[in-house]
Amino acid sequence: MSIFPLPDASIEAAIAAVTFDADGLVPAIAQQHDSGEVLMMAWMNRDSIAETLRTGRVCYWSRSRQNFWRKGESSGQVQMLVEWRVDCDGDTILLRVDQQGPACHTGRRSCFYRRADADGLTITDPVLLSPEALYGGKGQTPGF
Amino acid sequence: MSIFPLPDASIEAAIAAVTFDADGLVPAIAQQHDSGEVLMMAWMNRDSIAETLRTGRVCYWSRSRQNFWRKGESSGQVQMLVEWRVDCDGDTILLRVDQQGPACHTGRRSCFYRRADADGLTITDPVLLSPEALYGGKGQTPGF
Repeated sequence: MSIFPLPDASIEAAIAAVTFDADGLVPAIAQQHDSGEVLMMAWMNRDSIAETLRTGRVCYWSRSRQNFWRKGESSGQVQMLVEWRVDCDGDTILLRVDQQGPACHTGRRSCFYRRADADGLTITDPVLLSPEALYGGKGQTPGF
Repeated sequence: MSIFPLPDASIEAAIAAVTFDADGLVPAIAQQHDSGEVLMMAWMNRDSIAETLRTGRVCYWSRSRQNFWRKGESSGQVQMLVEWRVDCDGDTILLRVDQQGPACHTGRRSCFYRRADADGLTITDPVLLSPEALYGGKGQTPGF
């Protein structure tokens, strides 16, 4: 059962614990809640945090589009929030999520699909859905 | 068996894949390699990445001290590198590490010990070692 929407007082306490940067942003790490996979890192502002804690669906702030980025709005691969955490000095958020399908715009589960090893930079993860399948039919581009 | 030091060509390939920000920095997420716990987020620059991939011991860049921050140099709680990953657009690093003891300067295992819930912001994780035990006898402060 989802704990969202959180009460307004909790949303205010969460936002008050965040130290936003000069652009009013804070980095947010998305981790699959059950497997522990680190899926991606993106940015949030005050309003996208509030929306996320109200709806239980992750909403980032797109630095390139300067607009809300509701994860999955163009790809269909939504991220539902399971737990919202903030670090000791308030400058990073950890989102424990339930990610449907690929989190990465390349169609891979995680954005961290390249590993440095003795061979150089090795691609370790398969493409689950082609970018065309994710975005192609809709004339839309990823949010970042 | 450790794969470090990586060959120079691999270190160069890793650094070439990173998109540094205007300050020459990139955020790095540290995740315990076996349990999947997200421990902390800190920053690296070109030189701290190179050192980390040469030594196999995690070295960040301290923005407050403007100097290398060899994790554990004041607390003794070192972070050994297991795997170095970079995301799709090169602007975030994922370090899979073997963290000895607490990663957080508060003495907790993870820096993400506060959760937003119906009660507000709840501290969920115990202090494993007091900050005095971590730093007290040495007159040193955490690296960030």
